[in-house]
Amino acid sequence: MKTKRTKTHRPKAINPKGFKDYSEVEANERSKMLKLVCEIYFAYGFEFLETPAVETVEALGSFLPDKDRPNAGVFSWLDEDQTWLALRYDLTAPLARFYAQNRNRLAAPYRRYAMGPVWRNEKPGLGRYKQFYQCDADTVGTSSPAADAEICMMLSDILDHLGISSNNFQIKLNNRKILDGVLEQIGLYGEQNDGVTTDKKGIVLRAIDKLDRLGLSGVTQLLGQGREDESGDFAPGAELSQMQVSVITDFLSSLESTAAKTFTKQRESVGGSQVGMEGINELENIYELCLAGGISESKIAVDPAIVRGLGYYTGTVFEADLTFQNYDEAGRKRQFGSVAGGGRYDDLIKRFTGQAIPATGVSLGVDRLLAAISEINEKSIISDGPVVVTVMDKSLMSYYQQIVQELRNNNIRSEMFLGNPKELGKQLKYADQRKSPIAIIVGSDEIGKGLVQLKNLHLGAELSKTIKSNEEWKSRPSQLEIKRHDLITEVRKMLDGAQVQN
Amino acid sequence: MKTKRTKTHRPKAINPKGFKDYSEVEANERSKMLKLVCEIYFAYGFEFLETPAVETVEALGSFLPDKDRPNAGVFSWLDEDQTWLALRYDLTAPLARFYAQNRNRLAAPYRRYAMGPVWRNEKPGLGRYKQFYQCDADTVGTSSPAADAEICMMLSDILDHLGISSNNFQIKLNNRKILDGVLEQIGLYGEQNDGVTTDKKGIVLRAIDKLDRLGLSGVTQLLGQGREDESGDFAPGAELSQMQVSVITDFLSSLESTAAKTFTKQRESVGGSQVGMEGINELENIYELCLAGGISESKIAVDPAIVRGLGYYTGTVFEADLTFQNYDEAGRKRQFGSVAGGGRYDDLIKRFTGQAIPATGVSLGVDRLLAAISEINEKSIISDGPVVVTVMDKSLMSYYQQIVQELRNNNIRSEMFLGNPKELGKQLKYADQRKSPIAIIVGSDEIGKGLVQLKNLHLGAELSKTIKSNEEWKSRPSQLEIKRHDLITEVRKMLDGAQVQN
Repeated sequence: MKTKRTKTHRPKAINPKGFKDYSEVEANERSKMLKLVCEIYFAYGFEFLETPAVETVEALGSFLPDKDRPNAGVFSWLDEDQTWLALRYDLTAPLARFYAQNRNRLAAPYRRYAMGPVWRNEKPGLGRYKQFYQCDADTVGTSSPAADAEICMMLSDILDHLGISSNNFQIKLNNRKILDGVLEQIGLYGEQNDGVTTDKKGIVLRAIDKLDRLGLSGVTQLLGQGREDESGDFAPGAELSQMQVSVITDFLSSLESTAAKTFTKQRESVGGSQVGMEGINELENIYELCLAGGISESKIAVDPAIVRGLGYYTGTVFEADLTFQNYDEAGRKRQFGSVAGGGRYDDLIKRFTGQAIPATGVSLGVDRLLAAISEINEKSIISDGPVVVTVMDKSLMSYYQQIVQELRNNNIRSEMFLGNPKELGKQLKYADQRKSPIAIIVGSDEIGKGLVQLKNLHLGAELSKTIKSNEEWKSRPSQLEIKRHDLITEVRKMLDGAQVQN
Repeated sequence: MKTKRTKTHRPKAINPKGFKDYSEVEANERSKMLKLVCEIYFAYGFEFLETPAVETVEALGSFLPDKDRPNAGVFSWLDEDQTWLALRYDLTAPLARFYAQNRNRLAAPYRRYAMGPVWRNEKPGLGRYKQFYQCDADTVGTSSPAADAEICMMLSDILDHLGISSNNFQIKLNNRKILDGVLEQIGLYGEQNDGVTTDKKGIVLRAIDKLDRLGLSGVTQLLGQGREDESGDFAPGAELSQMQVSVITDFLSSLESTAAKTFTKQRESVGGSQVGMEGINELENIYELCLAGGISESKIAVDPAIVRGLGYYTGTVFEADLTFQNYDEAGRKRQFGSVAGGGRYDDLIKRFTGQAIPATGVSLGVDRLLAAISEINEKSIISDGPVVVTVMDKSLMSYYQQIVQELRNNNIRSEMFLGNPKELGKQLKYADQRKSPIAIIVGSDEIGKGLVQLKNLHLGAELSKTIKSNEEWKSRPSQLEIKRHDLITEVRKMLDGAQVQN
């Protein structure tokens, strides 16, 4: 129904679809967590770098998992000088641009950490937004497996540091080269590749990536003729022969009781493939270095099904999985799953420079990690509101102003009531809404006598629950008349009491 | 000259024009400063809010100073669902959207602070970028001048807190309604306004805004027939009559020896204009409250030429000016000028809700403030690099790994050299580049004997400057052989010594 007289169009007060506002509590929890993470990055010798949100589309490249739509997944626009610009979709592509741009003045190897929002123009879902935070660390300019191992150890330290106990997480290691070696066995790797094999290889990798969710039978379908999901949607398969499929499924079942045995079995899986052997050697090397660095065997595992979605990985890939169970936003029980991941991307900087510059790194899913921590810790910290100085008489504003300044000068968070001061009740309700511990009440009578009323709001609310005897009631009155010049002392006393109450 | 064989197009490793990367030092200085600012906001009872970078163009509205190009100044794009989206150009417009959206659940008045990058698609210049930081505080839901006064006092506290001494800054107050009252005198305000008068009013306000830079004669030209600048560019004027011009220039000269006298003179300037009198009353009220709140008279001043560029201000406007002189990036001497500004915008939220919701706030120019602080403090803190564990023998990587983990476990920032370990000299050069205080050197010989070499890199570099006697040389050797099990103790000792050195 439209009203006749509304001529002016009113803008809608809404967030764009897939974007959200963060409350004080959420933002505080996040910045506390990021501080802890960055302490570890810093301790490992990484240096902070902040790049802008906007990059040229050309510099970002297109490495997002969704290959179906060119340039999809990115927010982009044509600038006035005819350059396509875009919001960064991760922190790795900007690092590649930065390193290529500044490589002559940077220490080599260059270790940097970064954090901030990234943007993806993808369908938002439960807990998935178009703007979200990442917190990354990368080492550029070395192909040493020690660099990958260092990052895995650092990731383990971070999870420890965040209070996730070691039986609640595991770092899963793999290497794209081993996958390449397996693909070489079935003719899907090497110089002879054309568009069709490249596409097939993509389907195969994405299928392997789904082992966790679909199981071996689901992956087998995707490797073959395709798969129909519960909703009836059909995903076309890679159309491999039965022989080809079994080479891959054999490899996916290559986990043995010890890592050493797994490596032996994997060496069989890749047959004579040089790239495959290289991958296994690297993986073994990294695994050994992690153990030497103090990661216990239970915290690190080889997992042949780890692929990681992004297109730029060339060797080592890994992720940190939380192994405890929880309920998702739709109420379904599930393993918490991956909260961080990364790997080696030796060709990303070569795009700019023409010469190979090896690099490896990790990216933390900040929002997922926060969700995990809050499930583990269960309670979040509710910060206390300010002391509210009520306004009893508009002509006394300067007087109230002086009180509130005195409180702040003594490091007591406080504010003067700035709404319509007609009713004291409304002001006290406001103070409650602000989680205020104390309301200060002064009328012209009190001023004449040099007095001030303090109202203990937390106590007032809690009294009925906590006070048992009449004596206690009397010794802890919720309202107190004090001398003006004792204000700071008495407010402090009441605040300390309120803290004991909580 | 093009080479023949380059077929593949290489993306350029550059920032989009007008965007920059921030180094560790810059980012750290900024976050230290923002922490101090937010402590004050918090102490005044403000609550933190974080909105996303992206808003609908409709919600942002267009209030940037440049009215010549519609939608100019903003980075925007058409979303897949046919909604125009844009990067926020300030933190106030998103607050208006947020408040309108959540007004039923928010405390009234609602005080919030925010910080983060904003984006403007404007011509970049010396020290001016297309992405920059703001840090704001706003009070929504009250028209009380006490709210404006509170924000001015808070701004003064912030500058104090940042170490800018009180004779180095001044808060300049004005009120758009007074300007309206003056315009009413010359027929440029009120119901009868049409497009032409609105445009004229815009030119007049922008001219007044330039008093600082152009002086009264320059402003007079812009109010009249227009003005040619040094480069020969001609800016068209408002084409006011001489009588009209003199009403405005009289008002701009209304500053008297005391604020009280200025108010009296301004009351004459606005004649019988109701809106003008309202503005002067508000200004006087705010001025008095600021004095009552403890701001000294030298720190606060009435300034009839303060306009503030943004289109949404409706009453009080103010800015904080740094009054010391410095050199701009082009080497010219100048007053440092404005580092923060704000005012009252009573109609911005009404755009969404239809009903008036008064609001007032301040925005800090974070980059300008940082520049000011670094000029005042002169030196910035150079953080120390990590301890570097050199690699003398590739087969001993696990051993080096254990050393570096032991250091980190003892809260000593450290890293293993991850580049090509062929030459020790190269590794030490790398350590220098990283501002590393200590290099640790262990070969297979040392391992056999349970020994470790520590090289004090800061001392090595400083020795020639600081050491005077031979005894001192001997007691402070730059290289030290220690027992492996004394590693942590000895590294700590050397680090402490290095700090004394600095």
